[in-house]
Amino acid sequence: MQSEFEFIKRIRDQATKRRATADTKEDLVFGVGDDAAILREREGRETLLTVDMLVEEIDFKIEYAPPRLLGHKALAVSLSDIAAMGGAPAFSLLTLGVPKRFQISNPESQIFFEEFFAGYFALAEKHSVTLIGGDVSSTPDRLAIDSIVIGHCLTGQAVRRGGAKAGDAIYLTGAVGASAAGLKLLLDGARLNENEDSPAQSALRAHLKPEPPVAFGRRIAERGLAHSMIDVSDGLAQDLLRICEESGTAAIIDFDSVPLAPQVNEVGLISKELEAAFEFAVQGGEDFELLLTAGGSDEVELLEIAADFGVRLARIGQIIPVDQIKSRIMLSRGGQVKPLSIHGFDHFQI
Amino acid sequence: MQSEFEFIKRIRDQATKRRATADTKEDLVFGVGDDAAILREREGRETLLTVDMLVEEIDFKIEYAPPRLLGHKALAVSLSDIAAMGGAPAFSLLTLGVPKRFQISNPESQIFFEEFFAGYFALAEKHSVTLIGGDVSSTPDRLAIDSIVIGHCLTGQAVRRGGAKAGDAIYLTGAVGASAAGLKLLLDGARLNENEDSPAQSALRAHLKPEPPVAFGRRIAERGLAHSMIDVSDGLAQDLLRICEESGTAAIIDFDSVPLAPQVNEVGLISKELEAAFEFAVQGGEDFELLLTAGGSDEVELLEIAADFGVRLARIGQIIPVDQIKSRIMLSRGGQVKPLSIHGFDHFQI
Repeated sequence: MQSEFEFIKRIRDQATKRRATADTKEDLVFGVGDDAAILREREGRETLLTVDMLVEEIDFKIEYAPPRLLGHKALAVSLSDIAAMGGAPAFSLLTLGVPKRFQISNPESQIFFEEFFAGYFALAEKHSVTLIGGDVSSTPDRLAIDSIVIGHCLTGQAVRRGGAKAGDAIYLTGAVGASAAGLKLLLDGARLNENEDSPAQSALRAHLKPEPPVAFGRRIAERGLAHSMIDVSDGLAQDLLRICEESGTAAIIDFDSVPLAPQVNEVGLISKELEAAFEFAVQGGEDFELLLTAGGSDEVELLEIAADFGVRLARIGQIIPVDQIKSRIMLSRGGQVKPLSIHGFDHFQI
Repeated sequence: MQSEFEFIKRIRDQATKRRATADTKEDLVFGVGDDAAILREREGRETLLTVDMLVEEIDFKIEYAPPRLLGHKALAVSLSDIAAMGGAPAFSLLTLGVPKRFQISNPESQIFFEEFFAGYFALAEKHSVTLIGGDVSSTPDRLAIDSIVIGHCLTGQAVRRGGAKAGDAIYLTGAVGASAAGLKLLLDGARLNENEDSPAQSALRAHLKPEPPVAFGRRIAERGLAHSMIDVSDGLAQDLLRICEESGTAAIIDFDSVPLAPQVNEVGLISKELEAAFEFAVQGGEDFELLLTAGGSDEVELLEIAADFGVRLARIGQIIPVDQIKSRIMLSRGGQVKPLSIHGFDHFQI
């Protein structure tokens, strides 16, 4: 247990060292090192809380995930949730279940966790996020990471999933499919090479080091432009379905308008047809892009904000009343409209 | 993955059903079912956040932990942290890493999780805690539970570990050693029998179903009586050391004043001497009692509050300046004072 305490102490020292530089320090009363962290509350503001668990062999494999990128991704997945609410991330907590093979006294383990926290803290610093607590436990076999992020927004500004209205246009940041392509390549044996610049390497990076468009999401919420928003973590099809279910609506997406990541071409789909790439991209998970709906008259401002933040934004379809059609999500192509089946996204089973 | 979504949906339904009864509903803007939970902030108040991970085979074994009590304990360990800050618990998030053997479609698994949540929600209701979010992931082998609790206190009222002052009296709620005794009995093959009332069964209950003195801790903080406070989770000796390290003090505890749980006598210590029972009790973990320090003039009020809440409170020693002695924690017995060695608490190695 002493080694666990020492480990926590080292993380605490790192978190404390970084504390002074955070934009959010006025709200931090006390972080790592007591029974609970203490945060100041402010009138007119809301707290946003999200948690995501990543488990070795389920959400990642040690053999392909460099520890620095694993630390990055552990934080990124939760930042993405705050982005999807239109919030500003501020604080984080991190729980690690550390397998016995990662004994802290082992120099290789030390390097692993130094790299892990280097990646975690680099992304935290980029988004002015301060680590304020967590827990460390042993696990019998597998590394388990539970990532908690706390964000803020002004009262009433959070963008929910359930606000989509019939007639809304549907927008997507970035493109879909690169992360799923990267995962497939990793499972087929490809490995990241920082010095190589190729479509395959770019797919690996999309999977291993996602960069959610946090500042864009926040601005959209501040401007009150999105009626509903979600991050694309379980696949565009699945996550659009969630918006529709929560909003009591349906949606039509336009085959030709959905931006497919060019990296999808790297995965050697059995059929080279565009349909196969589309299917792969809209069912694949972990894009960590934002999917939002907005009134058509706001499109100019949306596109301006996207341009300001260097974010690609595509209109990919429309929200429609639920009683018009049999399936919640319809796909329109060449004048034909048919239901889009939704598989959801299961790691290692794509 | 569909089964995971259904599982989350069922938890969400349960959490939502309970929502209306919670005292804290005014602060809850939105709970389970979006990218993040949304909580109202209030001027003059602070948010307290704590997280604890429980892992199968490390923190508990399925073979001895009835699922209803596991659900109870998952919440209790985090409530204990909020109690130790003197806060009022209000909200919780829960992350479950569910092993493949617990497939949700399996009726036995369904019963397991129904029982787990029955225990979790019963304790949540008792403390007016509303579940507002979480995550569910698969794990390869072992059940992993990450328990997050959010509490509140008025600005400046949180009781930290680092506020102990030389001259403070040291107080302990309840007694120590019952939980460690219960764990030892469980590992030796004893099993809980709800219908049996014996010292051994009471030890098992102390370990499997801790009841942290939340209301007492809160009142102590509201009255500004404690200079420092911590919950006894890693052993009285270890947790007192934490108070001393954070406060820059040392402490003397009085051998005859520390209340040893009578259940310690059940574990068949090799030596039947009182020293062995004392050692077992002050090094054993998971008592989830409160350890606090306060000025001597506040003792009458402290004891009155303890009586109001039905909590046993014992003065067990005194905080002293760190430069008077060589060891942070000293033990006084029959006029002799010697250092108390601290082993910390390691599950399954007591």
